[in-house]
Amino acid sequence: MKKLSIIATALALMCMATVASAQSNDTDDAQKTRVLPAPNMERETVSFMDALNNRKSVRDYASTPLSEQDLSDLLWAAQGRNRKDGRMTSPTAMNRQEILVYVFTADGVELYDHDKHSLTQVLEGDYRSYIAGMQAFAKKAPVCLLIVADFKKFGSTSDHATMMVYCDAGIVSENINLFCASTGLCTVPRGIMDSEGLCKLLGLSEKQVPVLNNPVGYAK
Amino acid sequence: MKKLSIIATALALMCMATVASAQSNDTDDAQKTRVLPAPNMERETVSFMDALNNRKSVRDYASTPLSEQDLSDLLWAAQGRNRKDGRMTSPTAMNRQEILVYVFTADGVELYDHDKHSLTQVLEGDYRSYIAGMQAFAKKAPVCLLIVADFKKFGSTSDHATMMVYCDAGIVSENINLFCASTGLCTVPRGIMDSEGLCKLLGLSEKQVPVLNNPVGYAK
Repeated sequence: MKKLSIIATALALMCMATVASAQSNDTDDAQKTRVLPAPNMERETVSFMDALNNRKSVRDYASTPLSEQDLSDLLWAAQGRNRKDGRMTSPTAMNRQEILVYVFTADGVELYDHDKHSLTQVLEGDYRSYIAGMQAFAKKAPVCLLIVADFKKFGSTSDHATMMVYCDAGIVSENINLFCASTGLCTVPRGIMDSEGLCKLLGLSEKQVPVLNNPVGYAK
Repeated sequence: MKKLSIIATALALMCMATVASAQSNDTDDAQKTRVLPAPNMERETVSFMDALNNRKSVRDYASTPLSEQDLSDLLWAAQGRNRKDGRMTSPTAMNRQEILVYVFTADGVELYDHDKHSLTQVLEGDYRSYIAGMQAFAKKAPVCLLIVADFKKFGSTSDHATMMVYCDAGIVSENINLFCASTGLCTVPRGIMDSEGLCKLLGLSEKQVPVLNNPVGYAK
C-alpha cells in the first residue's frame, strides 16, 4: 500500500494557491436563481430491475438541451430532498450533506440547492471543456454534472471521513447513472476532468474537491 | 486539509500484521459454492421515481431470513453482470471490478462471484457482530453485506485511484440502497464496523480494505 495518500491534498494545495484570484459566487449580489419545476413523480420509468439491466456507460449524446423537467428530475434523483426533514434521495454519512452538484451547460455554470430545488448561476458562458479534460466527447453533452466533496460541510478530514466522503460522491453519481438508465438518458461516471482548472474557475475553497462528473444527454 | 490521509493505510498495516494467522479461503479444497437462482427480471418493483422517494436508512429489521430469490436479486442489483462481456449493474473506474461483496448471515460468511452469480462459503458460523461493531442493531439483520475495496484488482494505490475506488464502493452500496427502496426491503449504508477484526477474520490481504456495509432485512 505504498504511496497511498489522497488526491485531495494536492487539489487542496492547488486551490489554496489560486483561490485569491478565483471568481467567487459568494459575494455576487445579483445572483440569478431559478426554482426548478417540481420533480415529476409520475414520470414514466422502466422497472428498477430493468434500470439496473440497462445501466451502462454511454459517451455519445444528442446535442439537444435537456428539458427543464428532465433537468429537474435528474437533479432531484442525484440528491433531491425526499423527506420533510431535508433528508435526500442520496444518503450521506451522518447526514452531513457534504456533496455539491454543479450544472455545466453551453450557457453557464449553476449550483444545485437541494433544499430549495433551485439552481443559482455561478458563471455565464460555456465551460464544459473543464469537465471534458482530455476527453473531448464530454464537452458535447448538453449537461455535465460536477460532483464536489465539501470537507468543510462534512466537518472532518480524518482518514475515515475522507473514505466516507468519497463513498458519498459515488452514491450521488450512481443515482444519476440509474436515473438515466431508467429514463433513456445517457451518461457515464468520470474521474477525468481539469480539476485544477475547475478549482480556479469555481473559486473552490481548499476543502472543496472535485471528485466525479457525469455528462448527460439524450441518446443520439 | 491538515491530517488528510487515508484509512486504508492503517487498515493495510493491521492486515499485514495479522494475515499470517488469518483464515484463508484460497487454499480450501472443499469450498462450498452455490449458484444463486437467476435474477427475477419480472419481479415487482415500484417506479424508479418512487424508489428514490422511498430511499431512507432503516436500522430495525424482522429476523426472517431472506429468501433465495431476494438474496439473488439483491446481489445482482449490487454488482451483478448485466452484459455478456461481464460488465455490471454497478460501474467501476476503468471497469476494474475491484469491489468484493461478502454476505454475512447467521450461518456463515460467503463471497459473491458476479461472474457466476454464485456464493462461495468463506466461513461457517455467525460473524455478524464484526459487521455490527459498536452498533448492536446491525447484527440482528438476517443479511449483512460487506463491501471491500481490492486495490490489487484495481492495479493502483495512487491518490486518484484511491478516490475512484472509494467512489466505486459507494456506488455498490447505493445499488443496494435503491434495490431495497424499490422492493420494500430495509437497509442502511454504514462505515462503522470492526474493520481490524474483519481483516483477520476474512484473511484479507494488505490491499483489501473493508469500506462500507449494508445490513438488509424485511420490514418489521
